[in-house]
Amino acid sequence: MVYTIPPLIEEKISPYAKELIKKLDNFVENECIPAEQIFHKQLGKGEDRWKIVPPIIEELKKKARSLGLWNLFLSKHYREGAGLTNLEYALMAEITGRSIRIAPEAINCSAPDTGNMEVFAKYGSPAQKEKWLTPLLNGEIRSAFAMTEKNVASSDATNIATSIVRVNNEYVINGHKWWISGAGDPRCAVFLVMGKSDPKNKSKHKQQSLVIVPRDTPGINIIRPLTIFGYDDAPEGHCEIIFKDVRVPIENIILGEGRGFEIIQGRLGPGRIHHCMRSIGAAERGLDLMLARVTDPSRRTFGKLLAEHGTIVSDIAKSRMIIDQARFLVLNAADMIDKVGAKNALKEIGMAKAIIPSMLLEVLDRSIQAHGAGGLSEDFPLAAMYVGGRTLRFADGPDEVHIQQIGKLELRRAEKIRASNEKLKSKL
Amino acid sequence: MVYTIPPLIEEKISPYAKELIKKLDNFVENECIPAEQIFHKQLGKGEDRWKIVPPIIEELKKKARSLGLWNLFLSKHYREGAGLTNLEYALMAEITGRSIRIAPEAINCSAPDTGNMEVFAKYGSPAQKEKWLTPLLNGEIRSAFAMTEKNVASSDATNIATSIVRVNNEYVINGHKWWISGAGDPRCAVFLVMGKSDPKNKSKHKQQSLVIVPRDTPGINIIRPLTIFGYDDAPEGHCEIIFKDVRVPIENIILGEGRGFEIIQGRLGPGRIHHCMRSIGAAERGLDLMLARVTDPSRRTFGKLLAEHGTIVSDIAKSRMIIDQARFLVLNAADMIDKVGAKNALKEIGMAKAIIPSMLLEVLDRSIQAHGAGGLSEDFPLAAMYVGGRTLRFADGPDEVHIQQIGKLELRRAEKIRASNEKLKSKL
Amino acid sequence: MVYTIPPLIEEKISPYAKELIKKLDNFVENECIPAEQIFHKQLGKGEDRWKIVPPIIEELKKKARSLGLWNLFLSKHYREGAGLTNLEYALMAEITGRSIRIAPEAINCSAPDTGNMEVFAKYGSPAQKEKWLTPLLNGEIRSAFAMTEKNVASSDATNIATSIVRVNNEYVINGHKWWISGAGDPRCAVFLVMGKSDPKNKSKHKQQSLVIVPRDTPGINIIRPLTIFGYDDAPEGHCEIIFKDVRVPIENIILGEGRGFEIIQGRLGPGRIHHCMRSIGAAERGLDLMLARVTDPSRRTFGKLLAEHGTIVSDIAKSRMIIDQARFLVLNAADMIDKVGAKNALKEIGMAKAIIPSMLLEVLDRSIQAHGAGGLSEDFPLAAMYVGGRTLRFADGPDEVHIQQIGKLELRRAEKIRASNEKLKSKL
Amino acid sequence: MVYTIPPLIEEKISPYAKELIKKLDNFVENECIPAEQIFHKQLGKGEDRWKIVPPIIEELKKKARSLGLWNLFLSKHYREGAGLTNLEYALMAEITGRSIRIAPEAINCSAPDTGNMEVFAKYGSPAQKEKWLTPLLNGEIRSAFAMTEKNVASSDATNIATSIVRVNNEYVINGHKWWISGAGDPRCAVFLVMGKSDPKNKSKHKQQSLVIVPRDTPGINIIRPLTIFGYDDAPEGHCEIIFKDVRVPIENIILGEGRGFEIIQGRLGPGRIHHCMRSIGAAERGLDLMLARVTDPSRRTFGKLLAEHGTIVSDIAKSRMIIDQARFLVLNAADMIDKVGAKNALKEIGMAKAIIPSMLLEVLDRSIQAHGAGGLSEDFPLAAMYVGGRTLRFADGPDEVHIQQIGKLELRRAEKIRASNEKLKSKL
Repeated sequence: MVYTIPPLIEEKISPYAKELIKKLDNFVENECIPAEQIFHKQLGKGEDRWKIVPPIIEELKKKARSLGLWNLFLSKHYREGAGLTNLEYALMAEITGRSIRIAPEAINCSAPDTGNMEVFAKYGSPAQKEKWLTPLLNGEIRSAFAMTEKNVASSDATNIATSIVRVNNEYVINGHKWWISGAGDPRCAVFLVMGKSDPKNKSKHKQQSLVIVPRDTPGINIIRPLTIFGYDDAPEGHCEIIFKDVRVPIENIILGEGRGFEIIQGRLGPGRIHHCMRSIGAAERGLDLMLARVTDPSRRTFGKLLAEHGTIVSDIAKSRMIIDQARFLVLNAADMIDKVGAKNALKEIGMAKAIIPSMLLEVLDRSIQAHGAGGLSEDFPLAAMYVGGRTLRFADGPDEVHIQQIGKLELRRAEKIRASNEKLKSKL
Repeated sequence: MVYTIPPLIEEKISPYAKELIKKLDNFVENECIPAEQIFHKQLGKGEDRWKIVPPIIEELKKKARSLGLWNLFLSKHYREGAGLTNLEYALMAEITGRSIRIAPEAINCSAPDTGNMEVFAKYGSPAQKEKWLTPLLNGEIRSAFAMTEKNVASSDATNIATSIVRVNNEYVINGHKWWISGAGDPRCAVFLVMGKSDPKNKSKHKQQSLVIVPRDTPGINIIRPLTIFGYDDAPEGHCEIIFKDVRVPIENIILGEGRGFEIIQGRLGPGRIHHCMRSIGAAERGLDLMLARVTDPSRRTFGKLLAEHGTIVSDIAKSRMIIDQARFLVLNAADMIDKVGAKNALKEIGMAKAIIPSMLLEVLDRSIQAHGAGGLSEDFPLAAMYVGGRTLRFADGPDEVHIQQIGKLELRRAEKIRASNEKLKSKL
Repeated sequence: MVYTIPPLIEEKISPYAKELIKKLDNFVENECIPAEQIFHKQLGKGEDRWKIVPPIIEELKKKARSLGLWNLFLSKHYREGAGLTNLEYALMAEITGRSIRIAPEAINCSAPDTGNMEVFAKYGSPAQKEKWLTPLLNGEIRSAFAMTEKNVASSDATNIATSIVRVNNEYVINGHKWWISGAGDPRCAVFLVMGKSDPKNKSKHKQQSLVIVPRDTPGINIIRPLTIFGYDDAPEGHCEIIFKDVRVPIENIILGEGRGFEIIQGRLGPGRIHHCMRSIGAAERGLDLMLARVTDPSRRTFGKLLAEHGTIVSDIAKSRMIIDQARFLVLNAADMIDKVGAKNALKEIGMAKAIIPSMLLEVLDRSIQAHGAGGLSEDFPLAAMYVGGRTLRFADGPDEVHIQQIGKLELRRAEKIRASNEKLKSKL
Repeated sequence: MVYTIPPLIEEKISPYAKELIKKLDNFVENECIPAEQIFHKQLGKGEDRWKIVPPIIEELKKKARSLGLWNLFLSKHYREGAGLTNLEYALMAEITGRSIRIAPEAINCSAPDTGNMEVFAKYGSPAQKEKWLTPLLNGEIRSAFAMTEKNVASSDATNIATSIVRVNNEYVINGHKWWISGAGDPRCAVFLVMGKSDPKNKSKHKQQSLVIVPRDTPGINIIRPLTIFGYDDAPEGHCEIIFKDVRVPIENIILGEGRGFEIIQGRLGPGRIHHCMRSIGAAERGLDLMLARVTDPSRRTFGKLLAEHGTIVSDIAKSRMIIDQARFLVLNAADMIDKVGAKNALKEIGMAKAIIPSMLLEVLDRSIQAHGAGGLSEDFPLAAMYVGGRTLRFADGPDEVHIQQIGKLELRRAEKIRASNEKLKSKL
């Protein structure tokens, strides 16, 4: 047992969730973390990297499911859900973040599947649910979300240019996507493709539609996996894909034409919280590794343990402080989603998303520094976690976009303050 | 009504406390903030600065007491207390921080009296309580805490050198103190003096005693009020004081010889939380002023409202984020004190103390910058709040000491992590 | 002898300048620094603060002049100048910054007189020079520059609203200025007032004129001295002033109607460098004080000298590094002014101005922190220097304005880079 | 022509060096940068990564040598050198840093060969020079420097544990090295191995020796190339190597037993400057790419070019400012080496090394952020440069070690300052 529920919110966690937390914590520490090196050894070499899913993953999935650690992310709002609040699941997401490459997938709670499952659960027709949600919930297939495009500034989602044109009973899709995570996985069976079905609509937010595209539809050309700081993240990968005259039946649209923007807005709230809480877990892992390293008796410098250097002690304290601050911010956002819904928790979610990735990078950077060059290598999970954290500064919107949005939401308070100041002045 | 209880902890706040919060919020907004400029006008000039207490203060005290807004800081652990938890009072401290020069004193919850009242309430003999605690609780007198010394590094409290020597039925005190806040106030009637009664005791933490010294005892020489930046903070002030053969009866010792260190340890926990929460309130005030300023239509630069410059929007967002993070950290510490006591919440209290003053400075600095040079002047409360925040980076221990302590507490986890890593390695 | 000319640029310094540097360094160390406490004691009390100039200042001025340390700031471009390059004087400005309250004035090189003298020397008519420049160069009178206004965002100088209306042979001036430094000084005999003589001119930069206004002209109402973080900086002060139907003969215009903006542009280049270099000197003084403090054997904490704590050593190193980096930036800007003129060194000057004040604050903050609360008091020059540095983040344009300007100047390079990239792509 | 010699030091650059700078600048812009993508395409796949050196490299080497751009790093102190000062070469190193993967090797000025050539040139016997220095200078072979060890904290070089035992006419070497850069290159013909020949010598700095070990000596076992983040940097690589009873003739010792520490001290000064200046060039390249990206008309967000967002303009300005500051710091260190030798320029070299890698990371991070996720990929050189910069925070000593050393050197000034302060006090 490693994990302690933050006392400040412990009363809000149900006995059922506490039981799950305990089980999950044990599973991650005793099954997932030990599996990390096995996973890396089982990865394919050369082209096989994209064909082989390390068998340890499916073993762990079986074990997790048998323990009831499965699909925990789907909140109690969904019929298919595990009956947890967003706050409760947030704690579990943190726990899985300690073994971020293994644990989320092992319990079928890894992106982008989670967001896609939420879309199907929330907006899918019964037929769409049966065909795609069921096997996703069973962990039988995987999925990808195809939004980001190569030739436009995708941080402003209204720039998305892929065309979705209705021709008779089909939609014809043409576009150039990239950074489509998970598209390289041999188990990936379906894409959710975001594009413009009505590019001339006066409302910039009603031009988009979201369409289900089976992976094996003709016209999909996966050009290459992209690397991130040298990592290809096989077998999932982050792919560049050209959609050339890809045709799907009109039944494959989700919710209806022009509803695409609305869907992605709904999709992003909890997903951002999951990312953030896994990042907290990753940061805790990074700090734990640092604590172990700096107290390693074989690594003395200038006559002292690393832990006896005041600057190292200070670095540790700073990491502890920013982790704890960040955790409360995310838990608060999760709790707000539970209370008022993601739409009304925009500021809280945005703050979490804007803060946590940089926090993770700061903690990991210190831990890497304490590890010496080894910290940059594959011998520790630090470098890979760092790269994941760096990517998260873009994923689901770059820092800058969140920060501007938070500032603007905050500025809405100005009018009232000015009125109150004026009243005060008039009295004096 | 300006204040919103953070939803994450709202369930923990009793209806009674909520009622008080509402009343206090109104009192601060409608009575204290409008009183700020009056207060400054009522301050004395020249030597009178140390003789006159602006009458508005006593008026507000009367009003506050009649509203039941009085001595809220003394938690339910004390017979004399308002029956609030530390968490509940923390919210109220934040509210008073919005008018930090006026509100805390108006409700008889200002340092150093609060800490001193806690000492009397917790450790005082019945006679000591009657003589000093009662008038303090009534707001009839004020007090000072004389610990910091000029000629030693007082951030390490074991360096305190003032001698307390028992001679017959008296203690004779000799020492050179400075930064004794509140000692300049004409209402200040008593000092709690920290010194060494047993400087040769093997235990560094049993050499100290704490002694009650009435303000009018012969031998007390207030040399000068010190300034902080250019402020003298009259009439309270921060004084340099020489104690020369000052004699008090032995009944004036608190708790007994050698117990001084123990007492200050007990004194500091909640007091630090109060400082921190008031700082949160001050930061909110600073941000509010910034919001008002940057949307002032008469202050356009380069063709735009200040609020239309992206860097200003970003500054606002950053301030909002660090305030919210910091608040949770302090509320968590307050809640931990409620749950396990200040002694067992050292890390949580330390983190709050190490983070919040710098957070406050960062928020105020941005607000000042948005105000132009006026932000540095007496026309806004920003500069004075800034100086208060800067001082807080020393008060109750400098940042560095807290940070080292947090790091060392965190390092205690290392052994267990190392053991677990070893186990893991042995399995592979 | 304390000062070492940076070896990187030593070859550029003439033997004459080296001789002056040596003399100045001795003068500052042995005359000015020892005079600091005398100065503070000689300041007036109460209203006298604005009537008394500490006599030590005039004594030092006499001594300095007799040593040839006088008006060094006026570069060789001016007939009245000391024949120094901007680079050479920059080094001297650094030296005076070590005793920033005393030394610049002692050698008649203190703001705002320096900038005003430059204006007279560069743009003044023979009559204007005789009447005002000569006594200024002799240190017989002082002057102020009245630009900043209370009711507009003055960081955008085109907002200045004071009206200058020609009526027959006079200009009639109406406006509300504040932060007019030096206006409180009993020796201040003249204001240079910036206002709008042609507010409807299509060119935003031709609406302004600069007019000479003798201090004793009827209609000038000095409302109050403003404070900066509690300091009033008497006797110079920073004053709020209302100009009400102030009349001066038309001969008092400088250079001609509509030339005001042009003049202030010309005025600011070298003045910013002087501010920056004095700040470097102030930072060095701050670091020196820190070095002395942390090695003080009477100030041990937790069993160690402060200088034996790794975090303190690290703080010292960081201060050394940012000082040295900043100095080169300013010297480079000074050298560019010498080479291509201030107009063509906008980016270099802007970078110095944007970086140095924050650098100074960072160095002083660490030094203050090492001094404990004493560092905030009048017992050390740190707090006053800090406040000066903070003010400098506004003076001559706030950081934000410089930073945006630097970014925009840098962006001018983009087109060429894009062209070169395109060429490269076309080849591949 | 892209490069401009910093005007501040232009007078110090000889016409000969200026001619070389011009040629080199053209070579880098028109030959090396266009070769970058070719290089990546020519890299081997799978195991071939370690067997193939992209042919473009040897082509560029030929071209460079024919232009006289060859071995420029060896300063005029060496008979074999190009006759340049360290300052002059520093500028050239910056230029090569713009194409950091290609240009340094193309002109035979890449680490670790440069440092090794300096060792041979400075300390090698005539026979050693003939055998190793000549082919290295000709670019016919490459080399590695084997110091860092896996099982000790190598940031304190006295921890190195590899044993070098003399047995008759041979040295027998046993040890476990890692991060041996260049050891994977098929052209690598020789290792310089640092180890302990006299581990019991009382002087911690006389225990070490440096021995020449031909790559094909029996007992050398290259276990694996390490990755940095996800990069293997083939074909050079960073290798883990076990030396098991490796035997070399005693003639292979450099300078003599016990001289190892002395040699590495001498080796590191200029090498650190080279690293730093290349980093400046890399930072300039990163900023250039950012300028191009944010002005790309196809990448508008929220109705604006990226370059029209104030926060982006501010980011650009900040990058420009830290690059320029950092460059002066390194040029100063290079100039100090020229003037007083590396031994007497420890503080200047250390400051450059402590500042520049973090500066590079900061600049690149902003540029990456402006590029969106693409900035993390192989489509731009940013990610690889970032990883190089991150590594440099360890290479030749981690930041922390430099910072502590700088702080300690600075503290040597304390005594004199304290004496001067005492003198001042005694006068008052």
